[in-house]
Amino acid sequence: MVSMRERFLITNLKGAVTPDPARAWAVDFIPDAALAVEEGHILWMGRRHDLPAEYKGAPILDGRGRWASPGFVDPHTHLLFGGDRSQEFNRRLHGATYAEIAAAGGGIKETVRATRAASVGELVAIGAERLGKFRHKGVVHLEAKTGYGLDLDTEGRLLAAYAELKSRGWSLDVTLMPGHDLPPEFAGDPDGYTRIVSEEWQPALVKRHPGVARFCDVFVERGVFTADQGRAMLESGKRLGLTPRIHADEFCSTGGAELSAQVGAASADHLMFASDEGIRAMAAAGVVPTLLPATTLFLGMKDYAPARKMIAEGCAVALASDFNPGSCACIDPLLVLRLACLQLRLTFEEALCAMTLHPARSLGHAHLGHLHPGASASFLLWDVKHPLDLVYWMGEAFLPEIAGLPR
Amino acid sequence: MVSMRERFLITNLKGAVTPDPARAWAVDFIPDAALAVEEGHILWMGRRHDLPAEYKGAPILDGRGRWASPGFVDPHTHLLFGGDRSQEFNRRLHGATYAEIAAAGGGIKETVRATRAASVGELVAIGAERLGKFRHKGVVHLEAKTGYGLDLDTEGRLLAAYAELKSRGWSLDVTLMPGHDLPPEFAGDPDGYTRIVSEEWQPALVKRHPGVARFCDVFVERGVFTADQGRAMLESGKRLGLTPRIHADEFCSTGGAELSAQVGAASADHLMFASDEGIRAMAAAGVVPTLLPATTLFLGMKDYAPARKMIAEGCAVALASDFNPGSCACIDPLLVLRLACLQLRLTFEEALCAMTLHPARSLGHAHLGHLHPGASASFLLWDVKHPLDLVYWMGEAFLPEIAGLPR
Repeated sequence: MVSMRERFLITNLKGAVTPDPARAWAVDFIPDAALAVEEGHILWMGRRHDLPAEYKGAPILDGRGRWASPGFVDPHTHLLFGGDRSQEFNRRLHGATYAEIAAAGGGIKETVRATRAASVGELVAIGAERLGKFRHKGVVHLEAKTGYGLDLDTEGRLLAAYAELKSRGWSLDVTLMPGHDLPPEFAGDPDGYTRIVSEEWQPALVKRHPGVARFCDVFVERGVFTADQGRAMLESGKRLGLTPRIHADEFCSTGGAELSAQVGAASADHLMFASDEGIRAMAAAGVVPTLLPATTLFLGMKDYAPARKMIAEGCAVALASDFNPGSCACIDPLLVLRLACLQLRLTFEEALCAMTLHPARSLGHAHLGHLHPGASASFLLWDVKHPLDLVYWMGEAFLPEIAGLPR
Repeated sequence: MVSMRERFLITNLKGAVTPDPARAWAVDFIPDAALAVEEGHILWMGRRHDLPAEYKGAPILDGRGRWASPGFVDPHTHLLFGGDRSQEFNRRLHGATYAEIAAAGGGIKETVRATRAASVGELVAIGAERLGKFRHKGVVHLEAKTGYGLDLDTEGRLLAAYAELKSRGWSLDVTLMPGHDLPPEFAGDPDGYTRIVSEEWQPALVKRHPGVARFCDVFVERGVFTADQGRAMLESGKRLGLTPRIHADEFCSTGGAELSAQVGAASADHLMFASDEGIRAMAAAGVVPTLLPATTLFLGMKDYAPARKMIAEGCAVALASDFNPGSCACIDPLLVLRLACLQLRLTFEEALCAMTLHPARSLGHAHLGHLHPGASASFLLWDVKHPLDLVYWMGEAFLPEIAGLPR
């Protein structure tokens, strides 16, 4: 075993595939590649026979004929929640509507109850198990939201649990999202809830858990929060030093994409029903449209987000899991990659950028999402003839070896 | 290890889930179930505390808290083919049409070339590897077609390879399908090809490989074979003792569903564009509509087959993988089960019937697809809280333990 601290080489790779951070949407396939790594970062990457003399003689880690790729970066998860909703899921398969399920006390309210009942220690244990599953499938960094507490105490316990997971070495960014739904205590009073979240809870949470959350998020959707309510909560987050993300236009267009551009959000997510104006506004503002195709599949919807239109307008589209108990109980980055190619109609190269470089950028990490010098050495080694096999052999649960950094 | 020959019990199961062969679409969830097995068949199945005295005292196999289900039965695969089509797949993702790919010598013609170049031994090796993958994921029996030879010699080698796989103990039914496409030797002459297949090749193949094929199949589709050409090949097969199956109405309705009823087919498969009359005709004739939702996904189509309409008309719908190199390079029964629930809108119970009992019936096997007395003991043990988890936790690659019979 080569120590990750010293300089070493990885050779005997079939190839390396990586986005090029210097050129939009460009992906390089480098046959017979080698990488030089030191202190957990890539020093050099290219064809083996071009290896500079200064790296020769370093200890060698045998790539065993595999393909290297950057680790996946998942920019939208609801990692921490209590309970599960499999029985509600079955009622839905039997034809129950969301309204009927909600009226029976199910839906997100069921998850909120279970999450409020969980201690920080229980939440940490749940989170560590799930992070292990993401990691096992090649996700080396992810974003994770609060938003199943919907009260000051539980949102705080979620932040405390995330802080503990980070202190254990998990690589994640935390998003504060009390504006995920209207809690039962504020039924019928979304303005009142918007006010208390913006003026009291978010400031208090950031003060009590300094440095834990980097982003804030809100669910702008008919029946949840209006664009104005969302704007108020996001502006409150900005005043606290948080960067907005936004759940926008998932079931209809209520101006979420437009709002993301107005508030300078790092990403706008879902966007199945984003308007053409909203797409142009995101492109102009540099918002990263973050698409969640596994959710479309899980919800039994037919129409995926208009990814090709976004790319044509100049957006740097990203992909994410949306892992959550109600609309996508799914940790499977290869399924997301496959749906991106097969249903969002991305090329393999575009889908790879959207699973690595683009989400890394939307989270502000220049060292993730590619294999060029300076990148984190937390890259993946795939036992495939060609990276395209990851999509083509749709039923194979390819599992990468994760090189480089410890967890 | 308990010998499979003697009588034994399986207890300490969380439960057993099985279609009831005596009641249409009925599925029983039996908590704390036990099974009594002898000579590879189930003698008794029910709640443990109802176990009849005569079975008490038999050796016990510990179910370790898992759920038992019947093994999956896959009634539509193109198991044997040479080569793969991943590069063509990428051209398609980059926007090439099927017509452009075919004009460049790609598509099914590429697979036919690679299959013609393969020896029986090579085909057997390919088949054994793929059968192992199906088995690993819980498929205990499958149907497998010829149809990538499209000449007398290669179709014969495919039959010889299937015969060898059967002699090695793999549980499969073989379907003779020279009418899968028009080979280059007959370009522009589908009637001539129909004639030689019906009058010469099929009789010769059945005579040379007696007892290997049980079914015959043909691809009725615009641009492939007309309903009349398909009828001629299927009627030829019937005269040879083969039972028709049929590829019908995949890309448009050309009367394939109707034809399946007229010729008394065991199944009609694909059916994304089956007409209402065709669906009623299948229901009246007892044809099993066999739906292939992973193909819809792989092809990037939006509209899945009208499963609910078929069920409403009284059809005993089945599900299959359609494993093949061009339109569904996918061995993943759980993906099929999930797509059935999420996109075909089947309930979990309906989807389970369609993965087990119904395909077993369409293949003529009363001992497969359920856990009631007389059934094969090749059942699955799942490490889940509830069988519904197989669908709900969409990203988990649950792998069953296969109890009972050796391969």
